Formats: sequence, C-alpha cells, structure tokens
Amino acid sequence: MKSVLFAATAVLFGISSANADVTLINAFEVPEGQRDATIDAWEQARAFLSQQPGYIDTALHGALAPDARFELVNIARWESPAAFQTAIAAMQEAGVFRPPEGVFANPALYTVIASD
Amino acid sequence: MKSVLFAATAVLFGISSANADVTLINAFEVPEGQRDATIDAWEQARAFLSQQPGYIDTALHGALAPDARFELVNIARWESPAAFQTAIAAMQEAGVFRPPEGVFANPALYTVIASD
Repeated sequence: MKSVLFAATAVLFGISSANADVTLINAFEVPEGQRDATIDAWEQARAFLSQQPGYIDTALHGALAPDARFELVNIARWESPAAFQTAIAAMQEAGVFRPPEGVFANPALYTVIASD
Repeated sequence: MKSVLFAATAVLFGISSANADVTLINAFEVPEGQRDATIDAWEQARAFLSQQPGYIDTALHGALAPDARFELVNIARWESPAAFQTAIAAMQEAGVFRPPEGVFANPALYTVIASD
C-alpha cells in the first residue's frame, strides 16, 4: 500500500527516485556522410518522446574523433523500463523515427551500479 | 586575455565550464561469466584515475537485459581531452588496469551536441 501511495505521489508531484530511474544508452554506428541526417532523425524522435509519460531528459553526445566506432551516443533517463517501452511502442506506431540508411543503433537500458 | 584569465581562475578554484568538459563513454563487450571480474578491474582503474588532474566523476552502468550487446558502460567526465589522455597514459605506465580475458572496450571522448 505504501508503494502505491508513493507511486501516486510521485506521479502527482513529478518526484522520481534516483534508484528507480533507468538510463537508456544508445550508441549509433553512423556511415560517413550520415551524421547530420542522424541528428535530424534523433531530434524528431526526441520531440515525440519528450511528450510521453515517464520521460526525464536526454543528451545526444558527438564523438570528438571522426573515426570513433560510435559517432553519436544518446543518453536519456526514464522513470522506469515500462515507461520507456510504452513510449517506444507509441513512437513506432506513430512512425516518427526513421533512421537514415545504413545507421545502426544499439539501444539498451541500464542502471548505475557504481559511481563517485 | 579574458579567456586566459578565466582558465587560470578555473584551475585555481576548480571551476569547470560545462562547455569545456568532455565525456568518456566506454561500452564494454563482456563474455559470459566475466561481469564481476570486469567490475573489479574497473574499480581498480577508477581508484587510480580519480586521483589524476582533470578528473570530474564517473558512473558504471549495468545493462538490465542479460543479452545486451554492451553489458557494462562507463560514463565519466574530464575537464579536457588532454587531461584524460595524460591520465590514461599514466595508468598504462603504472599497469593498474588489466581487463579480464575476452573483454572488449570501446572508449571514446564526446561532447554534448544537443540536450533538453
């Protein structure tokens, strides 16, 4: 019962427990010449996903070295795995995100297991 | 001149500009049964690197799904690429970090190119 009350309170007041959050890390393999198109596609996805329940924030990282294996890495936080999966299913149904030709994504959910 | 003064001030007072920071993202491919050994090796590296100039912080992320391509992902912040490279060279010379058999690391430096 306590956890139900906490969940309801958290939803009402936008509180999210640091322990419950999950981190999406998505490392993109980007063929030469497709960087800008990938960033554009990511912006489309972000515009949709940021409106979904459970979204916290996101940051797209660009590699300093042009020959990095993963030229772009997205790091986003969600309130729970279920919230992320529901949002992704909604995005797929809406057909919002179309990765450019040859771009390969490696999305997975993580929790922090050790930090300062 | 202003930027030189700012840089000197930043060094003296430990201020780091969000724009100047770089993010290390290191996605580890971990063979079955090597997860704990990889975490141990990472802790050894962290103990050394956290004492080096320019270190800001680090967080090791563990995948929720056991079949994730990258079971562990380290995300660390450094004050500059030079600080990171100097620290890594020092660590290699000290022989502190020995990745377990079969573990493959993908370290690269990034800056945030788009965020909320």
